[in-house]
Amino acid sequence: MDTYDKVFELAKNRGFIWPSFEIYGGASGFYDYGPMGATLKRKIEGAWRHLYCVGEGFYEIEAPTIGVEAIFEASGHVGGFADPMTTCQKCKESFRADHVIKGEMEIPDGLNKQQLTDIIKKNDIRCPECDGPLGDVYDFNLMFQTWIGPGQKKRGYMRPETAQGMFVDFPRLLRFYREKLPFGVAQIGKSYRNEISPRQGVIRLREFTQAEAEIFVNPKDKDSHPNFAAVKDMVLPLFNEDCQLNCKPPLPMTVAEAVAKGIIANEYLAYYVALTHVFLTTVGIRPEKLRFRQHMRTERAHYATDCWDAEVMLERFGWVEVVGIADRTNYDLTAHQKRSEVDMSVFVPFEKPIKVERTIVTPNMGVIGPRYKGKAGKIMAALKSMPQAELNKPEVKLNIDGEEIAIDSSLFEHKTVMEDVTGESLIPHVVEPSYGIDRILFSVLEQSYAEEIVKDEERIVLRLARQVAPITAAVLPLLSKEPLTGKARQIALGLKDKGFFIDYDESGTIGKRYRRNDEVGTPFSITVDFDTMEDDTVTIRDRDTMDQVRIPVKDIHGVLEELITSDRPLTSFGKKVV
Amino acid sequence: MDTYDKVFELAKNRGFIWPSFEIYGGASGFYDYGPMGATLKRKIEGAWRHLYCVGEGFYEIEAPTIGVEAIFEASGHVGGFADPMTTCQKCKESFRADHVIKGEMEIPDGLNKQQLTDIIKKNDIRCPECDGPLGDVYDFNLMFQTWIGPGQKKRGYMRPETAQGMFVDFPRLLRFYREKLPFGVAQIGKSYRNEISPRQGVIRLREFTQAEAEIFVNPKDKDSHPNFAAVKDMVLPLFNEDCQLNCKPPLPMTVAEAVAKGIIANEYLAYYVALTHVFLTTVGIRPEKLRFRQHMRTERAHYATDCWDAEVMLERFGWVEVVGIADRTNYDLTAHQKRSEVDMSVFVPFEKPIKVERTIVTPNMGVIGPRYKGKAGKIMAALKSMPQAELNKPEVKLNIDGEEIAIDSSLFEHKTVMEDVTGESLIPHVVEPSYGIDRILFSVLEQSYAEEIVKDEERIVLRLARQVAPITAAVLPLLSKEPLTGKARQIALGLKDKGFFIDYDESGTIGKRYRRNDEVGTPFSITVDFDTMEDDTVTIRDRDTMDQVRIPVKDIHGVLEELITSDRPLTSFGKKVV
Repeated sequence: MDTYDKVFELAKNRGFIWPSFEIYGGASGFYDYGPMGATLKRKIEGAWRHLYCVGEGFYEIEAPTIGVEAIFEASGHVGGFADPMTTCQKCKESFRADHVIKGEMEIPDGLNKQQLTDIIKKNDIRCPECDGPLGDVYDFNLMFQTWIGPGQKKRGYMRPETAQGMFVDFPRLLRFYREKLPFGVAQIGKSYRNEISPRQGVIRLREFTQAEAEIFVNPKDKDSHPNFAAVKDMVLPLFNEDCQLNCKPPLPMTVAEAVAKGIIANEYLAYYVALTHVFLTTVGIRPEKLRFRQHMRTERAHYATDCWDAEVMLERFGWVEVVGIADRTNYDLTAHQKRSEVDMSVFVPFEKPIKVERTIVTPNMGVIGPRYKGKAGKIMAALKSMPQAELNKPEVKLNIDGEEIAIDSSLFEHKTVMEDVTGESLIPHVVEPSYGIDRILFSVLEQSYAEEIVKDEERIVLRLARQVAPITAAVLPLLSKEPLTGKARQIALGLKDKGFFIDYDESGTIGKRYRRNDEVGTPFSITVDFDTMEDDTVTIRDRDTMDQVRIPVKDIHGVLEELITSDRPLTSFGKKVV
Repeated sequence: MDTYDKVFELAKNRGFIWPSFEIYGGASGFYDYGPMGATLKRKIEGAWRHLYCVGEGFYEIEAPTIGVEAIFEASGHVGGFADPMTTCQKCKESFRADHVIKGEMEIPDGLNKQQLTDIIKKNDIRCPECDGPLGDVYDFNLMFQTWIGPGQKKRGYMRPETAQGMFVDFPRLLRFYREKLPFGVAQIGKSYRNEISPRQGVIRLREFTQAEAEIFVNPKDKDSHPNFAAVKDMVLPLFNEDCQLNCKPPLPMTVAEAVAKGIIANEYLAYYVALTHVFLTTVGIRPEKLRFRQHMRTERAHYATDCWDAEVMLERFGWVEVVGIADRTNYDLTAHQKRSEVDMSVFVPFEKPIKVERTIVTPNMGVIGPRYKGKAGKIMAALKSMPQAELNKPEVKLNIDGEEIAIDSSLFEHKTVMEDVTGESLIPHVVEPSYGIDRILFSVLEQSYAEEIVKDEERIVLRLARQVAPITAAVLPLLSKEPLTGKARQIALGLKDKGFFIDYDESGTIGKRYRRNDEVGTPFSITVDFDTMEDDTVTIRDRDTMDQVRIPVKDIHGVLEELITSDRPLTSFGKKVV
């Protein structure tokens, strides 16, 4: 068993992750979160909300997971969100064309359908299942499709990203934020990709959870984020384009330096790269197994000016993308404006009004009217839009319905005035940190998994961060009998009332119960023993150090609170029991 | 404008609820939650989790929203989850057949396709849009359908309820709960119903959020819920079958009485009816606009022994179901056991082993073997399963492969022994409280909406419960200038750090800012004025009474904490400002 198998085995047995629809044989790309997994997931999402919604002040919205076709036509997903596929002519099984070829030989990424078909034909690459001949490569759209309402009149798609829901709401959001840039919006929810044949377990899901924020910003302001000072000295492992091209390891570099040297395109993007580092290490990703990889010019979406992926090292899969931070420019809003014909621009006032020259033309209606009759109106409109230089000529040449008409300068007057312009309309740019919650969750599990020998016995322990561990503390009566059990239950109830995630467990030996809690990553165990009945104190045990301290029952709440919001060692709270 | 329109108008303008895909003309049955709505929703879900997950100790799980076909074949949704539909032969528009008929005449609910077709034909009911002839009535399945993977080999459905995800995980869940009944599991997530033509705004959605709990219980224990004492004296408005048949108003009755009189089928069901009352009134449903309606025998699912709906009075729609509490018996687990051939039973030990008589038969192999040759094995098996009474006869008649064979009693011995039986295997029953979060949210909005005249001006106020209001407090500098703004920002930041939902607002007059916060239901406004700069105190204003008290800045955190977890009036915290 490799690490993936070991972690997944534990995850299944301890109620973190289960293959979905298991009693019906399952379906690849679908997993359930069991009691421990769903709680861990909710705590990771909570940490994200704390950072983005409370900290950054971005309000969360919730859009449907089903979308109408127009959205994804505008976004480009109907036309472009596809994988190249080939179907065996004999057994009718379908495969990702590039994957089948890569099973046989090395090819670069990004080849088109024709190129892939040619390679298959030239090299006689055959069906991996039955060795039959493979057909021509075609595009398979990765969106799950359905029909809204009866019949097949209204096509709908399961959204491939939560982002589009925020873009189509932009006019409403802009009004909510009182027409002022910048502002951020967040969304946590399900997204869907109908992968052809996902084979990477929990790493490639057909239904997954994204946490995305869209920050709408004046493109002219991207170079100065208001809170940049807070992150500028953080050192990040940046695996930029140059490192990748020249096979160099990631550069450790301060955020300020990365922006100054043009390695990260602007302060806004850099700020969210830094925030992503804060988030991932908070929920338990080890810094030495984390890097930020810049998208190569060739792999970037055509509209993105710069894009960085947070990648985590997983033992089986290598570096895996868990977060993408992209400067999407005004691509999406412009696309929706075009498709919907709804204005997506913002009026941005200048700091102070600027003076702008404007030419005012006053045609001599008394002459132009009678002389040009039906064309007079168009002539006057054309004159008003002529540039200054043309108007200064003795004769102005106009093109009216394909006919050239020369207007003598005596037929109009013009003058130049200075006017105050208070601002401009523009379509905001969007900076987007996009988090894959499922991959983060699995990375957290893998990186916190440890096997060790304690007193000649192997123990498995999940060293989950205190903030995200599904259960914060287990309350354990030393023996399964009164009055210990009653007292322990009462303590457990009191802590639950305060909002802590508490497990009460009385079955099996105390050692077995410690192990069970070690395996689900419970950071603290509180043991009620006979001394508790005498002096109202309990033992708290630390999962990792296995240190134990004795503290009064009345202090448990405060101590736990302090333990999960700080890094203080348990032994700083009481006398170590030996 | 009726109340629905007024509330919906406010909901749109203040960022609670927006029609989805508005820039593309929308789609009926889909709504977005804007910044205020999503926050309100999350707090309502949080209150639900507090009650069910923390309080009742049910772990939450998270299953996919897409399900494979087998699940919904077993659950009956593929075969039975359909509405009767008719299509106009002229304009091709489709309609709910019963709705079209009810537009013309009164008919009872629950007629079948043929009966509906007959009524349409006999009464010449025509297309409501174009007056064309309507076709035969057919079933339209309400599940959104899609295909998993390429091609059309694997059909998938968007789940119509979250419940099935918990049923198919039952074997895993049972192991997680260490094979012991009862236990509860919860899930909050999206469900989908492809309504034919939803016309009731936010009340009938095609994509909606359910919060469901499934409590798996030994059917013999349904009559005693371990925590029944905590709810038994609550008085509930019970609109039972008898009230409905005889046009009587709901009976106010204690939970204990309802169970004793057999009005609610068992303690388990009654307990969750009571808990639903606690939840709904906590999040802001007014008790006088809430009743519990028993399903009539005729409308109950065929397997349900008893079922109650919590109904809320809405001005436009009348009594609307927001929660269903059902005893689903062992219907679902049995159906999945049958379809999947996976054992769904639990071994339930008896309190103490019971003695059971068992007959042991010892055939005389030395005689039976040679005499009956190939049939000897079957004969011995048949003898062992014969009832005691038969074995006492001088000759035992067996049927072996259709042939009657008489076995003389001398060919076997038999004796009766008493054996200890320690327990039995059974398929648990399921009690299910199922909450429609969207309807609850809208009901909360409508019931908290108020218009009133204050100092000759109309104000609109949402009297949201303190626990669920999206913003707990607004921090407002009296004037938009330093040092007031700096001080106010600092206070806002400190409160956010403590986890409060805080809005900082400096634009417009103070009166206008109060109104803005009244309209989104913010219960408290904290004003920073020039006195604040002198004595470090602020004014807190109560949204409903508009009372104001003066308190020290250092106490704000504690006062807010106390205010949202209790019903204490603001004026109990400081001197009222007049």
